[in-house]
Amino acid sequence: MTTPGKVYLVPTVLSADALFSIPAYVTAIVQQLTVFYVENERTARRYLKALDRNINIDALQLLLMNENQPPDVALAKKLLLEGKDIGILSEAGCPAIADPGHLVVQAAHSVDARIIPMIGPNSMLLALMASGMNGQNFQFVGYLPIKPPERTKMIKELELESERKKQTQLFIETPYRNNQLLKDILDNCKDHTQVCIAADITAPTEYIKTKTVKEWRKQLPELHKRPAIFLLYAGQ
Amino acid sequence: MTTPGKVYLVPTVLSADALFSIPAYVTAIVQQLTVFYVENERTARRYLKALDRNINIDALQLLLMNENQPPDVALAKKLLLEGKDIGILSEAGCPAIADPGHLVVQAAHSVDARIIPMIGPNSMLLALMASGMNGQNFQFVGYLPIKPPERTKMIKELELESERKKQTQLFIETPYRNNQLLKDILDNCKDHTQVCIAADITAPTEYIKTKTVKEWRKQLPELHKRPAIFLLYAGQ
Repeated sequence: MTTPGKVYLVPTVLSADALFSIPAYVTAIVQQLTVFYVENERTARRYLKALDRNINIDALQLLLMNENQPPDVALAKKLLLEGKDIGILSEAGCPAIADPGHLVVQAAHSVDARIIPMIGPNSMLLALMASGMNGQNFQFVGYLPIKPPERTKMIKELELESERKKQTQLFIETPYRNNQLLKDILDNCKDHTQVCIAADITAPTEYIKTKTVKEWRKQLPELHKRPAIFLLYAGQ
Repeated sequence: MTTPGKVYLVPTVLSADALFSIPAYVTAIVQQLTVFYVENERTARRYLKALDRNINIDALQLLLMNENQPPDVALAKKLLLEGKDIGILSEAGCPAIADPGHLVVQAAHSVDARIIPMIGPNSMLLALMASGMNGQNFQFVGYLPIKPPERTKMIKELELESERKKQTQLFIETPYRNNQLLKDILDNCKDHTQVCIAADITAPTEYIKTKTVKEWRKQLPELHKRPAIFLLYAGQ
């Protein structure tokens, strides 16, 4: 019986030109792979070419996975059982966390294939490190609701939960609504609650600051269309 | 007025000899730093020497921070205000998450110093990527209680919370109690609940598997004294 192929979780950059954030062994692995699940063919090609301009991009099999098109997991199982290695690439940072790559990983576990997560940039982790907040107890909840009553309720619940469990709360927003989200946090949270804003991580314009709600109210950063992550801590 | 110094969050290896997991720019930054907060002087020296054997280790100022000795944050503020850059190193992986480095980061925010989180290995993140579990909603709760009634209660609560919120639960144990923790999970969780065990991440013996509780009960891996992280998912 053939040993199943391996699944490599291939990190990509969070910000254009931040190739320094990718360890060299990622390129060495990528050079050996011919099948990739990707969220977007064009950006995947551009990234692989940036890692190594000698890669023959046209010879690669790029399989799509995104919101409109779930990954073909039957094909993934078939390829792995034939002994073929597979790479998974997301649009930004480490794959298989907030993208459909986790469905390919599930398929790999079901055929007992080895899964190798590779080191690379991740905005949640980098923001948590730089926030100074509690890293022994934290929660990432993705996007907050958009509509005002649900959103306000959620922000207040996260603050209460943070206070009660001494838990750091992490969440995100689509970049063109960042300024509104910050306003909603400042309108609904207590003066002494701490908020960390981490924007443009690994870019030359990287901005990471932790302040209390009271301090933030004095001066707001411009976050429009900048990829950002928000952290909240109301413990103690 | 002097611009405050910067704080670099310097990642280290999760497993001996896994220098491939550290991006090259980490070494370039480390070569410029002369003050580090470290959890253990001996391992910090060994790691810095492994990054670059030409570093003059004896000329470095290594400031201790650990459970018994909190970091001297007054000194950190003073150094930063004098324009001095500081590095923070933990015993394993990315600093300022589950170590006292976050207290130095807090001090840095209070004097408006720039904080630069650097890319490197982190067992939580790598385990989450490789688990195939939900990465849009997850929680890390650190160590579970040691005593049986509290521990059982906590495991059941985490399973319920995972079911209700479709939330991935991450937790750890001191390595010599890993086998007991796995047994406690299998004794208290539902058959179809999924458990991922990720041990020896980035080592040649790396082991990452996701199975249901029912499947795990048939065969247990040996986890004694292996650094491991456990993930649980009971959604759907």
